[in-house]
Amino acid sequence: MTRIPKINVGLFGLGTVGGSVFQILKDHEHFIAEKIGYPIQITKICELDPKKKQQYELASSILTNKISDILDDPEISIVVELIGDKPIAKEIMLKALSLGKHVVTANKAILAHHGLELYSEAFKHEVDIYFEAAVAGSIPILRTLREGFVSDKIISVQGIINGTSNYILTKMAKEKADFKVALADAQKNGYAEADPTSDIEGIDAACKLSILATMAYGVFIPYDKIYRQGISEITPFDIEMAQKFGFSLKLLAISRKTNQEIDVRVHPTMIPATHLLAHVYGVLNAVMIEGEYMGPSVMMGKGAGGKPTATAVASDIIEIARNISRQVRGIPPLGFKAENIQKAKIKPIEEIESEYYLRFTAVDKPGVFAKIAHVLGHHEISIASVHQEGREEGHEVPIMVLTHRAKEKNVICALKEIDKLPTVAQKTLLIRIERS
Amino acid sequence: MTRIPKINVGLFGLGTVGGSVFQILKDHEHFIAEKIGYPIQITKICELDPKKKQQYELASSILTNKISDILDDPEISIVVELIGDKPIAKEIMLKALSLGKHVVTANKAILAHHGLELYSEAFKHEVDIYFEAAVAGSIPILRTLREGFVSDKIISVQGIINGTSNYILTKMAKEKADFKVALADAQKNGYAEADPTSDIEGIDAACKLSILATMAYGVFIPYDKIYRQGISEITPFDIEMAQKFGFSLKLLAISRKTNQEIDVRVHPTMIPATHLLAHVYGVLNAVMIEGEYMGPSVMMGKGAGGKPTATAVASDIIEIARNISRQVRGIPPLGFKAENIQKAKIKPIEEIESEYYLRFTAVDKPGVFAKIAHVLGHHEISIASVHQEGREEGHEVPIMVLTHRAKEKNVICALKEIDKLPTVAQKTLLIRIERS
Repeated sequence: MTRIPKINVGLFGLGTVGGSVFQILKDHEHFIAEKIGYPIQITKICELDPKKKQQYELASSILTNKISDILDDPEISIVVELIGDKPIAKEIMLKALSLGKHVVTANKAILAHHGLELYSEAFKHEVDIYFEAAVAGSIPILRTLREGFVSDKIISVQGIINGTSNYILTKMAKEKADFKVALADAQKNGYAEADPTSDIEGIDAACKLSILATMAYGVFIPYDKIYRQGISEITPFDIEMAQKFGFSLKLLAISRKTNQEIDVRVHPTMIPATHLLAHVYGVLNAVMIEGEYMGPSVMMGKGAGGKPTATAVASDIIEIARNISRQVRGIPPLGFKAENIQKAKIKPIEEIESEYYLRFTAVDKPGVFAKIAHVLGHHEISIASVHQEGREEGHEVPIMVLTHRAKEKNVICALKEIDKLPTVAQKTLLIRIERS
Repeated sequence: MTRIPKINVGLFGLGTVGGSVFQILKDHEHFIAEKIGYPIQITKICELDPKKKQQYELASSILTNKISDILDDPEISIVVELIGDKPIAKEIMLKALSLGKHVVTANKAILAHHGLELYSEAFKHEVDIYFEAAVAGSIPILRTLREGFVSDKIISVQGIINGTSNYILTKMAKEKADFKVALADAQKNGYAEADPTSDIEGIDAACKLSILATMAYGVFIPYDKIYRQGISEITPFDIEMAQKFGFSLKLLAISRKTNQEIDVRVHPTMIPATHLLAHVYGVLNAVMIEGEYMGPSVMMGKGAGGKPTATAVASDIIEIARNISRQVRGIPPLGFKAENIQKAKIKPIEEIESEYYLRFTAVDKPGVFAKIAHVLGHHEISIASVHQEGREEGHEVPIMVLTHRAKEKNVICALKEIDKLPTVAQKTLLIRIERS
């Protein structure tokens, strides 16, 4: 066997995650070298923000403002992209792959939108692209789908993969806090951005689900095919109701394969208190995978933060380093042979069936519920239970209905009709229920 | 690249797991071939029991009674050993490795006792031995330690890794059933053997912990170095007390590294209701790993059963097949370079510190508790709270004490003294408390 030189890594982006990647590789340098037999070193870092550079003790020779200083360096075999969702990130990755460099990234947004292009480019140039850190921080769920679960056919993927929204829902549940209060608290504690749209509207979760489902089924599932409903319309009252009915309320990312169709969606979901994801609180992330032979399996851990996320990036770097040293290609990033990747057949949300929690807001007077029930019945939606909290004749009151399993398209039609009734004061809130 | 022939596997043992391995490889034959690019086939099965052979539709040419029919077949590159804890299993594995064949096994007992010999033999002959199925059935925790968590230093491993005892404790907690009643129920439902010793005395869990800790720290931790306490002395009353104090009671396998010493033990443990393992009920298995950078992470799933366990065996076979096709050795079975494996420095149980739940059984008369408290104080054990259920002057009553953090050796000395007091009627029950 030829002698193994040290593995040189070029890093783009010295933000929270990038900084921690630099730190863990330095801190654990000897430990890693002892484990795998040779050292791994970051030899160049491209970062434009002078403030970020000052946070670490860095030799000036290691720092650069020029992309080409990394991409044109023949000694660098692994490019780590931690810039975030900017077009330049995609350009850098495509260029690195075309130059025969392996890529490690945490860029969920770019993978969710342009993954197919990147995977194809990696395949074409016989290099690898790994992205464990793009989903659920420290939890090695992608590697597990690719290797640990390789022998089994995946039936479903369900995940609590956005820590911000789970923190908000936990706070709303435990303290009966309003959504806005819980959001402000999350922002104060650094768990939510100033503009929280991506987290609370399920955009971040949908990007991650795109990657998870792509890995699970070996077909590319782009972001824009994923149905989304956020949590901003949820009230503490809905959460209390959920508990009353024996459920926990979570923003769930769900993917399920039936026949050749894949159902992918992110929405607030009521799950039974016995569900394996029911007790995942706060900023924790958890993903439940169900396989034909293995049954359900859950992985849970920190979904964000520099240090936890850096462990995933560093493990990807080590995997590639091991392959370089053995002079082989890695396992294809999706587990499936790359030339087979195709676009998926997605089941439209209208085609799914589910149980539903419906919160109607109606004027409290005799006969109002009869009208709602009539419309539901007309659309073949069968009622499992009804609950009306308080009574105030002539005022708006919430009426909660749990349905039996019904067709989503029927529910959509029924709600359109119901929301037009003169006695119905607000748009009806719909929350889907998942039993297992 | 040379053309890849199909991969031939020889299987020893057609019991529950062996049968399911045969089934999954047959069921998913095309699926696996599509994923990895070539087929994997079991071409010979060695099984002595004629009844087991009849359960599957097997060509007679595939079946044999002779070990040599597999070991001497040059076409077979992977040997799967699923015989169980018998000396012949070890002999078969050593022989297979020495002949340059890769080995997949689920044999926790043999690995926990003779792992070092097997790993060394694999290293010597440049072949691989994988054993994902030996710990926690369908949960790919070993692969995760080896690859997903490769970049991080592991601080602790905690697991509920014996489904039988967790089923029994769950039943005792939910139905206030006595240990014997819960055990009989587990036996009736096929979750416990006729002789349940290995499960209820923590032997099975200690074998698995030996493997987990060996993987986590890269040093061989043999079974006989692991402290064990079983669950047969636990009463529903202790579980109720635990709940009263805010704890869940679990049979936990624990390993922790401090400085260069490793603490490894299996015992009933009280963990806070907020602990990530507190809600793992029934026959489920779960392992929590804490890393320096990544924080705590949990994997949970089915720990036993033919089908779930078979997915782990099959994934190991596929990993080896992928390596054969790429003409490389796999990642060393322990993640660490095999030549570095040494015996570990184990911290004796007397050296640990913990909080304790102590259930004294004393004759209820004035001054009895004062004597117990005096002995505890004398040994520097500080009391956090005391609880006495009921009062019956002159009769034996249980007195429960929660201690602050204390040295185990002091606790052992104190209990020796206390159990000799004339007013103390039974051996005191000790349960350790783990906070995180």
